[in-house]
Amino acid sequence: MTALPAFFAPYQDAINRALERVVPGEPASTNGGAPAVIDAMRYTLLAPSKRVRAVLVMLAADICGNDNRALPAACAVEAVHAASLMLDDLPSMDDAPLRRGRPSAHRQFGEAIAILAAFGLLNNAFGHLSREYDAVLATRLVTLLADAVGLDGLVAGQAEDVLATESMLSFETLERIHRRKTGVLFSASATAGALTAGGSERDIAVLTAYAKNLGLAFQVVDDLLDVTGSSEETGKVTRQDARKTTFVSFSGVEGARALAEELCRTACAALEPFGRRGAHLRELADFVASRRL
Amino acid sequence: MTALPAFFAPYQDAINRALERVVPGEPASTNGGAPAVIDAMRYTLLAPSKRVRAVLVMLAADICGNDNRALPAACAVEAVHAASLMLDDLPSMDDAPLRRGRPSAHRQFGEAIAILAAFGLLNNAFGHLSREYDAVLATRLVTLLADAVGLDGLVAGQAEDVLATESMLSFETLERIHRRKTGVLFSASATAGALTAGGSERDIAVLTAYAKNLGLAFQVVDDLLDVTGSSEETGKVTRQDARKTTFVSFSGVEGARALAEELCRTACAALEPFGRRGAHLRELADFVASRRL
Repeated sequence: MTALPAFFAPYQDAINRALERVVPGEPASTNGGAPAVIDAMRYTLLAPSKRVRAVLVMLAADICGNDNRALPAACAVEAVHAASLMLDDLPSMDDAPLRRGRPSAHRQFGEAIAILAAFGLLNNAFGHLSREYDAVLATRLVTLLADAVGLDGLVAGQAEDVLATESMLSFETLERIHRRKTGVLFSASATAGALTAGGSERDIAVLTAYAKNLGLAFQVVDDLLDVTGSSEETGKVTRQDARKTTFVSFSGVEGARALAEELCRTACAALEPFGRRGAHLRELADFVASRRL
Repeated sequence: MTALPAFFAPYQDAINRALERVVPGEPASTNGGAPAVIDAMRYTLLAPSKRVRAVLVMLAADICGNDNRALPAACAVEAVHAASLMLDDLPSMDDAPLRRGRPSAHRQFGEAIAILAAFGLLNNAFGHLSREYDAVLATRLVTLLADAVGLDGLVAGQAEDVLATESMLSFETLERIHRRKTGVLFSASATAGALTAGGSERDIAVLTAYAKNLGLAFQVVDDLLDVTGSSEETGKVTRQDARKTTFVSFSGVEGARALAEELCRTACAALEPFGRRGAHLRELADFVASRRL
């Protein structure tokens, strides 16, 4: 399946509406404001997006009972993801001119405002969790998200990725970078959803096994789309990774495609304890393996 | 008094030791690491510093009962402050080559790693609070800190500061920028300390009134030191603010000095309900008004 599963649309609508509350259009204070940085935060956070991570939060909550309390956690994950995209695109990192079909944030607002907006999105993700949940759940979610961003997550993965440019990496290093840059936030998304629904430790273990393989598959396909896709489909400038080691430079197009499919099969196999209730998560994995956008 | 009050030294020692736990020297994962970004985080966080904000957390806790639980909050505030310094110094912002007597983080580690390290310090501040406190207190502290960093705090102040460079500001705008860049984190430091000690709403109101005036005074003296101080004293390249509107460009050296003294008098007047227990906070205000470092 190359299009998003049908169940995405209502989730996306709910997520997009809820994201408004993470960065309200008006500043909190009335005595002047900070319109540029608010605009930049909203520009990236509210840009058209598949919302894969946020939908994963919702699906994980649903499979653990219900998704009634999952939206704020889904929004926090999206805010962190948007912040990481803004940093990835900076001139000192990937220097990407295009994101989600529009100029990247630093091209649109200047580098300083883009950096501050990314910082603000990370900050507001934590503030959102602490305001929207009872204390016990909020604290678990803040710890979970901080671990996903920190020194065995996004920040570490992006740092190693930046420093590794133009050198040939081992497969082990490449896998570690993308586990940290993508896999860890996918796993945290699934765990966060489960926590909002009171999921058991066993549910969380199953969902984590699924999500970490899904996240890595997602990144392998990202590398494929950089080679085989078009800017119209991906919303990014393609053929940008020529100077980097990617899963395609390692395994070739066919090898990378086989790897993505294998990872998605492993992800789905982990779902076995959920039985038929895992249908949407399996559809999500089918989409990730074959996506063109 | 131009030197730090004597009670600073034991607090600084305790804070410096406790900061080690915010960014441990070893990465969490053993399968490889992210040494560059960890080094950059530790380089800025553990550099010689007066620790004024962290000491303010400790003093506020002490005046509300005891400072037994204040250290993690003090560390979180210092981590946020260190992150904001790294951003301030970036080429796209103040482009400062020197900080705390050493090359600024981006000069030492490159721009990408400095940006990621700042992001990592903000992240770890929240993670530290959520791990070190019980859920109710952690959630209050996370909310407090997120408000201090967000769109009526650091991020907003720095964004307006960046965009205002080279234009003449009104006094009202200048005051708003520095309330957000400095005053809000000073207030949050005092409130955080009070919360860890179970301070009353009235204690918090008194401490907030003190801290917001102290924070603004601190910034006015920063502007003074940029004109009258030396790099040896401040650890920064001085005469950097010539193209910016500062409290000195507004009021002249003598006027800015008088303003700082007036703000510190106002800060101390707020402490009246604490009686003799406010002695250390008054000493801190005397230091801020007359500091040369």
